[in-house]
Amino acid sequence: MKVLGILGSPHKDGGSAQLLFASLKSAEIFGAETEWVSLYDGEIKPCIGCIQDEEPDCKYPCIFEDYGKEILEKIYQAEGIIFATPVYWFAPSGPLKTLIDRMTCLENMVAFGEPSYMEKKVVGVIAVGADAGGELAGGYLITTLTSMGAIVPPWGIAYSHKGKNAVYDDKALLDAINIGILVTEMIFTLKGTPKPLTFRDDRELMQKIRKEVLQIIFQEEKGETRRKGSSI
Amino acid sequence: MKVLGILGSPHKDGGSAQLLFASLKSAEIFGAETEWVSLYDGEIKPCIGCIQDEEPDCKYPCIFEDYGKEILEKIYQAEGIIFATPVYWFAPSGPLKTLIDRMTCLENMVAFGEPSYMEKKVVGVIAVGADAGGELAGGYLITTLTSMGAIVPPWGIAYSHKGKNAVYDDKALLDAINIGILVTEMIFTLKGTPKPLTFRDDRELMQKIRKEVLQIIFQEEKGETRRKGSSI
Amino acid sequence: MKVLGILGSPHKDGGSAQLLFASLKSAEIFGAETEWVSLYDGEIKPCIGCIQDEEPDCKYPCIFEDYGKEILEKIYQAEGIIFATPVYWFAPSGPLKTLIDRMTCLENMVAFGEPSYMEKKVVGVIAVGADAGGELAGGYLITTLTSMGAIVPPWGIAYSHKGKNAVYDDKALLDAINIGILVTEMIFTLKGTPKPLTFRDDRELMQKIRKEVLQIIFQEEKGETRRKGSSI
Amino acid sequence: MKVLGILGSPHKDGGSAQLLFASLKSAEIFGAETEWVSLYDGEIKPCIGCIQDEEPDCKYPCIFEDYGKEILEKIYQAEGIIFATPVYWFAPSGPLKTLIDRMTCLENMVAFGEPSYMEKKVVGVIAVGADAGGELAGGYLITTLTSMGAIVPPWGIAYSHKGKNAVYDDKALLDAINIGILVTEMIFTLKGTPKPLTFRDDRELMQKIRKEVLQIIFQEEKGETRRKGSSI
Repeated sequence: MKVLGILGSPHKDGGSAQLLFASLKSAEIFGAETEWVSLYDGEIKPCIGCIQDEEPDCKYPCIFEDYGKEILEKIYQAEGIIFATPVYWFAPSGPLKTLIDRMTCLENMVAFGEPSYMEKKVVGVIAVGADAGGELAGGYLITTLTSMGAIVPPWGIAYSHKGKNAVYDDKALLDAINIGILVTEMIFTLKGTPKPLTFRDDRELMQKIRKEVLQIIFQEEKGETRRKGSSI
Repeated sequence: MKVLGILGSPHKDGGSAQLLFASLKSAEIFGAETEWVSLYDGEIKPCIGCIQDEEPDCKYPCIFEDYGKEILEKIYQAEGIIFATPVYWFAPSGPLKTLIDRMTCLENMVAFGEPSYMEKKVVGVIAVGADAGGELAGGYLITTLTSMGAIVPPWGIAYSHKGKNAVYDDKALLDAINIGILVTEMIFTLKGTPKPLTFRDDRELMQKIRKEVLQIIFQEEKGETRRKGSSI
Repeated sequence: MKVLGILGSPHKDGGSAQLLFASLKSAEIFGAETEWVSLYDGEIKPCIGCIQDEEPDCKYPCIFEDYGKEILEKIYQAEGIIFATPVYWFAPSGPLKTLIDRMTCLENMVAFGEPSYMEKKVVGVIAVGADAGGELAGGYLITTLTSMGAIVPPWGIAYSHKGKNAVYDDKALLDAINIGILVTEMIFTLKGTPKPLTFRDDRELMQKIRKEVLQIIFQEEKGETRRKGSSI
Repeated sequence: MKVLGILGSPHKDGGSAQLLFASLKSAEIFGAETEWVSLYDGEIKPCIGCIQDEEPDCKYPCIFEDYGKEILEKIYQAEGIIFATPVYWFAPSGPLKTLIDRMTCLENMVAFGEPSYMEKKVVGVIAVGADAGGELAGGYLITTLTSMGAIVPPWGIAYSHKGKNAVYDDKALLDAINIGILVTEMIFTLKGTPKPLTFRDDRELMQKIRKEVLQIIFQEEKGETRRKGSSI
C-alpha cells in the first residue's frame, strides 16, 4: 500500500512540511509504504487547457515532459495521497494549483471511456498558514479532489495557523497524524481487508512522532536535504 | 441500510427535489431503504451556540424541542444522508444552514469523550440553482460534513444550473443517480460487505428514473403531498 | 449618514458583538450615525424562493410580515451596513444566511426595471469564531454583497479566531475599527464629499474604543440589554 | 487613468480573453487608457514565501527578475485592474494563482510602515469556464484583492459557463462590459471627479463591442497576435 506525500511549500522545514511528515509517519506506523515529493524541486509547466478543444486531447500522460510529469506518475501509482500546502492568500500555493490543473489529464480519462484515474484514490489535505485561511485552502482541495473521483476520509482536512511552529500546535499535529491513519484505514477498507485503526488522543504517540519530525526538520535546516522521492 | 434524503428547498417539485428523488430512487434500486424530509415542513430554531461556553453544554440531543430535533434524530439513525439544496446566493438555503448549525450537537460529542455522531456516515450533496453557485454550495457542504467526521464518496457532489428543469439536465441527473449508488456502495464497503456497483452512463436506467421522478413531482404539483418521512 | 450594524450572533456580549460595536464606535467618531440590530431578537421566516416563478413575484418589500421585514427596511434605508457574524461551520450563522436569502427582494428589483436596492450601499463584514473559518465566512459575505450591487471598501473583512476574547485580539480589533472608518470614508467619497480618514495603528484610539466596548458588553452581561435599534 | 487587463488563460482567443477585451473596450469608451498582458507570455516564478521569515524580506519589488516582475510593475502603476481567468477546477489558473502569491510583495509594504501598494486600486474579475465554478473563482479573487486593500466596485464579478462561446453569452457579456464601466466610474469617484456612468442594458453598445471583440479574436486566431502590453 502506497501513500504519497506532496509538499506544496518552498520550505522543507516549514509548517506544512512538518505536518506532512507527521501524517506520513503515522501512515507508516499503521502499515503504509510512504514517499514524498516537493513541488519546488523542479519545473511544473502551466496547464494549457487542451481539454477545451472540440477534439479532446487532454489525457494521461500529459503532453509536457517536465517535473510535473514525474509527479503525475507518482500520483497515478499511489493508492493514497496527502497534499500539504502553505496557505498563500487563503488558497494552495501557485505550484500546487498548477499541479491540480495538470491533474486534469488523470480525471479526463472519462472522456475516453475509461474511469477517472483519480477514482477511489484516498486523499487527505494539510494546510498551514501564519494567519488564516487553512480551512478555505483545505476545503477547496477536497472539493476538487472529490470532483476528480477521489475519496476523502472523515476529518480529511488538517490545518494550523501557527506557521513554522505548526509541529507544536497539538490540535493540528493530532489532526495530521489522524489523517495518516484515516487514509491508511480507508485504503484497507476499500481493499476489502478492513482494519479499524484508532488513534484519537494518543499523546504518547504524538510526542514520539513530534520528536521524529523535529529530527527530520533539523536535518533539513542543516542542509542535509533528502533526495526527492525518498521515504520519511 | 438506511439512506435519508434532506430537502432544503421550499419547493417539493423543484430542481433540488427532482435530483434528490432521483438519487434516492437509485439508492433504493441498489439496496438501500430510503426516507426523505423537507426542512420547510416545520420550525427549525436557530442554534444559540452553547458550544462556546466554558462548560460545554452542546451535546446530542439538542436542547430545542422542535422540528429540527426530529430531523437530528433521523440523521442520527441514518447510515447515509443525501442533502439537496437550492442555491440561494451561492450557498445552501437558510433552513439548511440552520440545520447544519444545529448538527453541531452531533459532532460535539467529541467534547464528551465519545466519537462524533456523524463519524463515518456517508454523505452526498445536491445543489440546484437557476444561475450559478452549485459547486460553491456543494463544496461548502462537503467541507463541513468532512469536518464533522462524515465520509464523502467519490463524485459526492451533483449540481445543476437548470433550476426547475434540473430533471432534464442529463449530466446533473446522471450525477444525482450516481450519488445514490456511490453512497450505497460506500456503506456496503464500510460494513465489510463490499459490493461494487456501477452505473455511469446507463441511459436506460436514467430514463426510467426520470419518468418516476416526474410522476412524483406531478403528484406534488397536484397537491397530493406525501407526508414527511415517507419513502419515495 | 446612516450606518447599520447587523449582529448575526445569539450572544450580545460575544466576540462578533464586540467587534461590531468597535466598528460602529469608530464610524460614529468619524461622522456616521449608527444603529444596530440583532437577528436573534425576532423571527426571520425562511425565503420561499418566489424568484423562481415564471412571473417573478420577488420584490421589495418581501411578502412576509415578520421581524425580517423590519430589518430589510433598515437595510433599505442605510447607506452603510456592517454585518457581524459568529463563524458556525466556516460560514455565517443560520439566521444571517436566512436574512441574506430574504435580501433577494432588494436585489431583484432589477427584474422590475429598477436598480438593485443594494446598489452602492457600502458594506463591511466581521466574522468571529473560536477556531477557524473567519475569512471563509467573510469572503462568502462580500462575494454575495458585491453580487447584489454593494461596494466593499478596501480591507472590508475583519475576522478573529479568539471567540469571546475577540476584543483583546489587537489585530482583529484594529481591523474592525478600520472597517468603521473605511465604510464611512467610502460613503463620503460616493457622496462627492471625499474626506480621507486615516487610522491604521492608532493604539490610543484602539484602547479608548476597547474600553467603551467592554462597558457595553458588561451592561449586556448584567442583563441591561439595550433595546434593538438603539445606537451604540 | 490607467486600467490594466490581466489574462490568466493560455488562449488569447478563448472565453476569458473575449470578456476581458469587452470590459477593456468599455473602459476605453468611458475614458480609461487600457493595456493588457497575458500571464502565459513568459515565466512567472513561484513565490518562495520570504514573508514568513522573522526578518521580513518580502517587499516590492520582488527579488525575482522574471516576467512576473514586469507584470508586478504594471500592476503597481495601474489605477484599475481587471483580472480574467479560465476556471480550472473551480479556481483561477495556476499562473494567476502564482501571480497572486507574488503580489504579496505589493501588500506586504505594510510591514515596512507604508500603505499596501494595492490600496485603493479598483479591481474587477472575470471568470469563464465550460462547466461551473465561475463565481467560486471570482469570489476567491475579490476576497483576496479586498484583503490586499483593493476596492471592488458593485457587481465586480462577471462569469460565464459558456467557455469559448462566452462572447455570445449576453448576460456575461453585459456583465463584463459593466465591469469596464464600473471600474472606470469608481476611479473617477476616488479621484474626486465623480462622473456617474450608466450602461446596464444598452444592447446596441453590446452588439458594437461584441463585433469589435470578435475582430480581435479573429486576428488572434489567424496568428496576428498583438504584442503583449498593447492596448486593445
